Amino acid sequence: MTLETVSSWRSHGGTQGVYRHASSETHTDMTFSVFVPDHLPEGRLPIVWYLSGLTCNHSNVTEKGEYRAACAELGLIFIAPDTSPRGDNVPDDEAYDFGQGAGFYVDATQDPWSANFRMRSYIEKELPALIAANFPADMSRQAIMGHSMGGHGALTIALRNPDRFKSVSAFAPISAPLHCPWGEKALGGYLGPNRDDWREYDACALIEDGARVAEILVDQGGGDNFLETQLKPHLLSRACDDAGIALTLRMEPVYDHSYYFISSFMADHLRWHAARLI
Amino acid sequence: MTLETVSSWRSHGGTQGVYRHASSETHTDMTFSVFVPDHLPEGRLPIVWYLSGLTCNHSNVTEKGEYRAACAELGLIFIAPDTSPRGDNVPDDEAYDFGQGAGFYVDATQDPWSANFRMRSYIEKELPALIAANFPADMSRQAIMGHSMGGHGALTIALRNPDRFKSVSAFAPISAPLHCPWGEKALGGYLGPNRDDWREYDACALIEDGARVAEILVDQGGGDNFLETQLKPHLLSRACDDAGIALTLRMEPVYDHSYYFISSFMADHLRWHAARLI
Repeated sequence: MTLETVSSWRSHGGTQGVYRHASSETHTDMTFSVFVPDHLPEGRLPIVWYLSGLTCNHSNVTEKGEYRAACAELGLIFIAPDTSPRGDNVPDDEAYDFGQGAGFYVDATQDPWSANFRMRSYIEKELPALIAANFPADMSRQAIMGHSMGGHGALTIALRNPDRFKSVSAFAPISAPLHCPWGEKALGGYLGPNRDDWREYDACALIEDGARVAEILVDQGGGDNFLETQLKPHLLSRACDDAGIALTLRMEPVYDHSYYFISSFMADHLRWHAARLI
Repeated sequence: MTLETVSSWRSHGGTQGVYRHASSETHTDMTFSVFVPDHLPEGRLPIVWYLSGLTCNHSNVTEKGEYRAACAELGLIFIAPDTSPRGDNVPDDEAYDFGQGAGFYVDATQDPWSANFRMRSYIEKELPALIAANFPADMSRQAIMGHSMGGHGALTIALRNPDRFKSVSAFAPISAPLHCPWGEKALGGYLGPNRDDWREYDACALIEDGARVAEILVDQGGGDNFLETQLKPHLLSRACDDAGIALTLRMEPVYDHSYYFISSFMADHLRWHAARLI
């Protein structure tokens, strides 16, 4: 696996890089960003995965996420993948919430999506191997977080892989894709009409079906336009209550769905993860 | 003067707004951003002006500057104006370093620029009056900072108005526009060929001619591509030495000219200003 360095900047006492590689999962070039704080030559640092939301690629959080100061202070590697395969030869949809930029962290089973839209396997298998081989990462200490569609990704990937991640958090996650328009459209499109096939891509359904993590941290803006129609944190709250999962759900009045919200609580989340990555 | 709110976000325990107004100086609509931390109802907060560099408008630092956490903590209002008048009826140049996006904080005297390109008067007179009338700003406590062309703007405006600003700092400023290609092109184009007319827009020349501030803080990336050809901090260092101005010039190895550099030292600069705005 060859890794091409697209860009590299000195920032906040570390190195912010953007990298590209040919993915065997998506059969496209994939681009992602990694921040590595300064560290001892042989040192290996814990890593935080950040999964982005609809329409985003790696650059949104890289430019607007305000994570570098805290990562440098706490000694955390921060990895921001893309949200889907991209390219002229990759199927797409005119809507912002399906196709390129909207991979929903699933392995699609339906034509024409199944050939390229394998973001689950990309995030769960291919990219971790690439990170382990190319960065000073301690793969025994991983955390995962995400925003909106990426919050859904972080929660479902953590719930399916409880031994891999020491902690999981989310900003305004899509809590129950089975029960919101974004989720029903995406899961129906990528996975077909059988809703049983969707359950491994729904945090609440995974919990109902027995998946467990010890605890979850969620921040949710009270002024978020998508709160009631798409995000539905009360469903996650109910599922966690029933399952005995310690969910810390912080409603943040007035904050919306943007990076002005995410960046406000990014350092908080990173500190919370760092305390669990020791 | 009517102020239109373009956008408003809750962020970092304050309000990040973008505003537009019809400028009597530039005869165009002008857009700027203001961050106001939460404060007591009748409270007035000190303000920091941030002047941006070539090609930028208010949005670059607003999205990438990472200033809100420190401003909220320190109780500072942060104001980011545009770098020039803009619009289809405003003269422009195909180059990135002249015309729209490249106002150089001068009052142009040459046709066709003189009708609109009045960024000096806009920043020195019109916008402060608008801020005083519309925001909870303590106009007796102002600081100014900027990046590159905006560092030049901050230094020259502070040197010409020592009673208005309690402190001035810059990231990678154009230290001596009389002695670099960006400066000679812009000042020649906006002000005409008489180099004596340029001196009030050159920090080093202003100091040579007797202008004074007590101290200046500058951060400069050692890996900045423009360091030797355009920025020339050694000329500012020499001028300050000769004049007895306490210049703190910090060379930051490897850092470049981007917002990855600026954001790394933003909080440092804001703390430095806050200590002088008490």
